[in-house]
Amino acid sequence: MKNILILGAGLSSSSLIRYLLQHSENLNIKIRIVDQNLENIFVKTNQHPRSEALVFDALDKEKRLFEIEKADIVISMLPAKYHVEVAKDCLEKNKHLITPSYVTNEMKALSIEAEKKGLIFLNEIGVDPGIDHMSACKIMDNVKEKGGRILEFKSYCGGLIAPISDDNPWHYKFTWNPRNVVIAGFNSTSRYVENNEFKYIPYHRLFTQVEEINIPEYGAFEAYANRDSLSYQKVYDLENSPTLLRGTLRKKGFCEAWNIFVQLGMTNPDFVLDDSENLTPRKFLNVFLPYHPSLTIEEKFIRFLGPQKHLFPLFEYLDLFSSKSTIGIPNASAAVILEHILISKWKLNPNDKDMLVMFHHFVVEFNHQKQIIQSYFVTIGENNLYTAMSNTVGLPMAICTKLIIQNKIKQRGVILPISKEIYVPVLYELEDYGIRFVEKQMEINSKIYNS
Amino acid sequence: MKNILILGAGLSSSSLIRYLLQHSENLNIKIRIVDQNLENIFVKTNQHPRSEALVFDALDKEKRLFEIEKADIVISMLPAKYHVEVAKDCLEKNKHLITPSYVTNEMKALSIEAEKKGLIFLNEIGVDPGIDHMSACKIMDNVKEKGGRILEFKSYCGGLIAPISDDNPWHYKFTWNPRNVVIAGFNSTSRYVENNEFKYIPYHRLFTQVEEINIPEYGAFEAYANRDSLSYQKVYDLENSPTLLRGTLRKKGFCEAWNIFVQLGMTNPDFVLDDSENLTPRKFLNVFLPYHPSLTIEEKFIRFLGPQKHLFPLFEYLDLFSSKSTIGIPNASAAVILEHILISKWKLNPNDKDMLVMFHHFVVEFNHQKQIIQSYFVTIGENNLYTAMSNTVGLPMAICTKLIIQNKIKQRGVILPISKEIYVPVLYELEDYGIRFVEKQMEINSKIYNS
Repeated sequence: MKNILILGAGLSSSSLIRYLLQHSENLNIKIRIVDQNLENIFVKTNQHPRSEALVFDALDKEKRLFEIEKADIVISMLPAKYHVEVAKDCLEKNKHLITPSYVTNEMKALSIEAEKKGLIFLNEIGVDPGIDHMSACKIMDNVKEKGGRILEFKSYCGGLIAPISDDNPWHYKFTWNPRNVVIAGFNSTSRYVENNEFKYIPYHRLFTQVEEINIPEYGAFEAYANRDSLSYQKVYDLENSPTLLRGTLRKKGFCEAWNIFVQLGMTNPDFVLDDSENLTPRKFLNVFLPYHPSLTIEEKFIRFLGPQKHLFPLFEYLDLFSSKSTIGIPNASAAVILEHILISKWKLNPNDKDMLVMFHHFVVEFNHQKQIIQSYFVTIGENNLYTAMSNTVGLPMAICTKLIIQNKIKQRGVILPISKEIYVPVLYELEDYGIRFVEKQMEINSKIYNS
Repeated sequence: MKNILILGAGLSSSSLIRYLLQHSENLNIKIRIVDQNLENIFVKTNQHPRSEALVFDALDKEKRLFEIEKADIVISMLPAKYHVEVAKDCLEKNKHLITPSYVTNEMKALSIEAEKKGLIFLNEIGVDPGIDHMSACKIMDNVKEKGGRILEFKSYCGGLIAPISDDNPWHYKFTWNPRNVVIAGFNSTSRYVENNEFKYIPYHRLFTQVEEINIPEYGAFEAYANRDSLSYQKVYDLENSPTLLRGTLRKKGFCEAWNIFVQLGMTNPDFVLDDSENLTPRKFLNVFLPYHPSLTIEEKFIRFLGPQKHLFPLFEYLDLFSSKSTIGIPNASAAVILEHILISKWKLNPNDKDMLVMFHHFVVEFNHQKQIIQSYFVTIGENNLYTAMSNTVGLPMAICTKLIIQNKIKQRGVILPISKEIYVPVLYELEDYGIRFVEKQMEINSKIYNS
């Protein structure tokens, strides 16, 4: 019997654990799960006989190493910054490792040693990164095999609220870490290339330069540029592609309103507001509005909105003008306070369902004939435990765990899911779970395309 | 004979050196100046018999310590971050120290030991900080002595081009470190208090929230908020003042145009542009403009300017649309490239004169009667060696050197020029050099003031 060690039983571990337990007899595996909170583990295992709860802090190196020693494969669901520590343990104890997170330079540096030891350190095998890599590479490999060339690749992904649970004027709820949503892109410059022109977008314009995406049956979305698209040139072998852009999806209209928070300065995590504990939402708003000797806060805010005053009701919905209660968090940054205000309105209710949307847009060329290829999927969460986010993050990880047990992954070292031996079986099996890409191809008149 | 050791013979040392040499017989002092460039020193000393050139790198600790040992007073004109190292040397060798820069926490930490040893570590004794402290404290001490209360203090300062040399549509040239002008305020949040309301301005709005200041004979200026005004509450004993704001002055209209650079993202020093070496100004502009398949760069920029398209000629003046030459700087950040472009148009010509403007605005209250006190000075540089910047930075430092030699400063430890023993004689003597504050007082109807 093989031992699978999962570090962290947070929200995104539920579907991973369910899949592995469902397949535990067939694969003859035991799933051992580390979390500080026993209830966190039991909710996901139902005390399944092939599961074992290990209640300790996974950041405790000594205890962690002790358990890693007994494992065959380690799956780190810890915050991304801790993966490299776990990876070093896995090197020491000769264990395979799976993480859903971006490969850092530190992680990359372990590749040669991992390869030498015959270990698989598989990263970026969640949804974004993860399913995006796999589905994009499947299309691109196919185009290249047929002698085609990629002229344009734009890829979008978003964790959103399902239409059935979409009951607020922002058309958004927190379906993953609220903190990361509030500070997404903060003070970094997004970079991409369009028609061979490098483009840079500073944070304060990030939510003003959006592209509209329409998805059949799901309506209009919009996308803002996601950090550094160019870092994908190498991963995807797209150094010569004239257009490469990755974006984050929101429902149409969200970005215009979110930009107001950015413009106000409310998304800043880097400085502490004076007397934050005693601020009300109303006072919090006022500190960012230009001083006026007589206007009310509502009047100042409408003046601030200028031609966007149609957005006023969205902020009213968030009780931003309320003086009823104080924030109550000492030494809080603007971002922490904004998160606090948003959570009370944007948290998932017990019956809410989330939605994960991914959309790829390619322009490819075969013998001077240009073609658009679009590929997308939408998946809705089952409930507030097996969310769309949890399914799309956890299932690729779980399937890869199976592939490693079955010895079907031949690569070694620090790897991404961009080779056929991984993406073919994973994408195929994801379809059983309703994660199924719809693909469309359209010939285009190259004269029209170029104009 | 006493030895004065000056570390650094850069632009702002010239007036300091001239004053000390002019007074060297009377004071019986020798001025020894360290710089890596002998010419830098000779330009300022004319090989005066009471001067000595020491050609070495002042950051070389061993050589520096050797010279500090021989000195009675050390004046650090090095970049601000090195002052604390010099201060530690001065502690070791029991020497007084003068710097024109803001006191850091590290510097503050040396105060007790300096005090114990009977040493004066006088900081913030240039123009801003320096003359601003002295002139403001003079007024505030006077108000307090008469039983008055400070309701409002706004203080503005700017290094600008003299009207006679103002020959460009930006009404601005670099009269000090261009780098610091380009990145002024970058990605920090400015903080002040107005009528008891805390106010925060994120960088991307810094140049949109300006106040207009009119100065007789010099016309209309505008001021943007200068970093953290609230850090002055303690220094000035103004914790209870309802309004406290420090601002940086520009000629009217500058901030609106400068804000375009901010909005584009061109003031960012934090990331390197791809292929920066081969960018032309035109291409540099284009990477920040939203992509369009057919518009020219001029058309895209006009679209970007929107209602501010009247600013177009200012950017044309800077040759921002030029493709004639490449930037030629490898691995350059946006800020470095922008600085490069601006320098060719904004550098001081040999005959140009600079101008230093300082403006204080107080509202004070005596027995429920409110009064406005305004105090300002404007000084024009003599030439491109004895600039207004050099005079206003160097003369207060030089005068304080004299005061220390004459044993007229009784305080010890890390101090600022906010006590009478310093500001009274310094401000008095500055008048001889044309740095003379004009003061106005106006009674105001409190009903009007409150409305």
